[in-house]
Amino acid sequence: MNKKFIFKIQNQCGRARSGVIETTRGTIRTPIFMPVGTYGSVKSVHPSSLKKLDAEIILGNTFHLHERPGEDFIEEFDSLHGFMRWEKPILTDSGGFQVFSLARLADINDDGVSFKSPVDGSNRFFNPEVAMGIQKKLGSDIAMAFDQCPPGDADRKTIESAMRRTTAWAARCSTYEMKPWQAKFGIFQGGIYEDLRKSHMEEIAALDFDGLAIGGLSVGEPIPDMYRILESVVHLMPHQKPRYLMGVGTPIDIVTGVLNGVDMFDCVMPSRNARNGQLFTDDGVIVISNSRHRNSHEPISHECTCETCSGGFSRGYLAHLFRTKELLYHSLATVHNLHYYLSIVRRAREAIVNGTYEQFATSFIARYENADRSIN
Amino acid sequence: MNKKFIFKIQNQCGRARSGVIETTRGTIRTPIFMPVGTYGSVKSVHPSSLKKLDAEIILGNTFHLHERPGEDFIEEFDSLHGFMRWEKPILTDSGGFQVFSLARLADINDDGVSFKSPVDGSNRFFNPEVAMGIQKKLGSDIAMAFDQCPPGDADRKTIESAMRRTTAWAARCSTYEMKPWQAKFGIFQGGIYEDLRKSHMEEIAALDFDGLAIGGLSVGEPIPDMYRILESVVHLMPHQKPRYLMGVGTPIDIVTGVLNGVDMFDCVMPSRNARNGQLFTDDGVIVISNSRHRNSHEPISHECTCETCSGGFSRGYLAHLFRTKELLYHSLATVHNLHYYLSIVRRAREAIVNGTYEQFATSFIARYENADRSIN
Repeated sequence: MNKKFIFKIQNQCGRARSGVIETTRGTIRTPIFMPVGTYGSVKSVHPSSLKKLDAEIILGNTFHLHERPGEDFIEEFDSLHGFMRWEKPILTDSGGFQVFSLARLADINDDGVSFKSPVDGSNRFFNPEVAMGIQKKLGSDIAMAFDQCPPGDADRKTIESAMRRTTAWAARCSTYEMKPWQAKFGIFQGGIYEDLRKSHMEEIAALDFDGLAIGGLSVGEPIPDMYRILESVVHLMPHQKPRYLMGVGTPIDIVTGVLNGVDMFDCVMPSRNARNGQLFTDDGVIVISNSRHRNSHEPISHECTCETCSGGFSRGYLAHLFRTKELLYHSLATVHNLHYYLSIVRRAREAIVNGTYEQFATSFIARYENADRSIN
Repeated sequence: MNKKFIFKIQNQCGRARSGVIETTRGTIRTPIFMPVGTYGSVKSVHPSSLKKLDAEIILGNTFHLHERPGEDFIEEFDSLHGFMRWEKPILTDSGGFQVFSLARLADINDDGVSFKSPVDGSNRFFNPEVAMGIQKKLGSDIAMAFDQCPPGDADRKTIESAMRRTTAWAARCSTYEMKPWQAKFGIFQGGIYEDLRKSHMEEIAALDFDGLAIGGLSVGEPIPDMYRILESVVHLMPHQKPRYLMGVGTPIDIVTGVLNGVDMFDCVMPSRNARNGQLFTDDGVIVISNSRHRNSHEPISHECTCETCSGGFSRGYLAHLFRTKELLYHSLATVHNLHYYLSIVRRAREAIVNGTYEQFATSFIARYENADRSIN
């Protein structure tokens, strides 16, 4: 398979844009949300259900797949696609975020990071070449550069140091030879400092990448700071390349991201919150364990066309499955939440095409935030 | 909906028989295996997957559904079918087995049984009218009479007492008025005593039931005793009514049951064992946590046409999902095991039609028992 990675912007509405990314394994309509498949499965969801959801690209986690089952075994199936039986595009992160948030760090220097495996405590070493080498074996369609991601409360000096290192690492990643079909995205940092964000974005944008990602947001900083950064930086990112906001976020975060010109999103929120009993609707989050749902015949949402809502599964049935810890709860709930997130980006796209994105965003946020919480 | 319950024997081969049960909600080809949906879901399996498995009837547990969510709420959806979104036939047990095996008994007399709820410890009372009343609200297509099921090591005197009570209770169940479409089956006991089995079978068979079930087997007695009872009693059961062996069993138990003339089976084994990492094949059980499967590219079985095996999911992938406790493991594994059990009764039926059932049973059992355990 040869490389195919073409990004075309089709419509713009203010700073918001819609388009397509054409890849070897299929077309991705932007703005897009990518369901997260950490360990080689989107938790509880069969690949055939993902297809029915019209998911166009999913995400795999390099850090976790390196731990278990290991990239060498996955490569025996040609790529992660063959291992997990998903034929459409996959984006893999670089493991940078997980190394700095999940692992017990032993040492970090300009070459790379030593840490302990969270699974068995043994010694691990990641650097740009290791992270890209793993992603090469995973055979993803979009590979991410290895970056240093500081926490949301890091001070300016820590952020600057992480930026310098991330730039040097990004340069090494940009020249690393991948499988023929693999595109590469760079990641910039800068915390909640606008000047740092802008300068670091320009440094990474100057390197040879197919797309550019905003890292280090939604990592503990106040939400208004995140929105301020999005407003000040996204529109300055290269116009002709996809813009990816990593690991974000709530429905309102996504609508706000698109408003500022973001094209791609991923987040564990729809799948993780489903498992914890939180179901998304335009009127806010339903907590399925609330006693008011126990005797309900209503679907999660009358407006929803997902297999769970249109299949006649009631809130009362879901509440019963959740209460009795029935495994079927997880797939019914996750399918709904992923459908909801995918419907947000589809509706956003439609509003951009129609030139009404700003109205869409305003009314979406107003309804979501002002919903009557006493009924959820 | 009016009642429709017609059993037609189509072929016989020795004592084995194949036929159809025509019910209001669909036709059931016998011999049949019924997947167990204790709490209103076959654990981890979506109703649409059950349909793809060609499951023709499933089982619901009266005892559990009475505890949670309660039959009154389920009746608001017309019946269990509407609540759990399964349109084909459902058989409900009477709760007798669970009352005597799961609950803390407070008192048992000729009227009924007092016990403590295993969920919240509150007082419960079941008798024939209560058990049939719950099943009436659940609206199942086949309801089971309320019986006293003694443990597998019970002495003759205990068994005789349970038989007397079960007969009196069965008479009360047989005259209880159900929903128009509901058929009723009687259950006989008798432990591992051939004379008691025969006399109790005749007592229950004399009552007005649509089918007859063998209770109190596979409850801890030695397997040869169970086979001896099947061989001596099943062929004496009324020829023109379905014969149901409750809660049994292994693949060999099912093949042996059919050989003796059983028409219907249910068991938690395929679904429960799937969740515990045991996958059924004609060459015996595969333990997916065995290290030999970790790097395997093979399907569970090359002969299997289930969605998991034909979908290209490898033993290595399943082993990875099992090890990382990924929820998707459960549905992939359960679908395989249920497909395997349904394929046993389908192949049995075919062999009966072809007049080769005895050869089928002999070679099935030989292969299953003599498989090379070192490769599983």
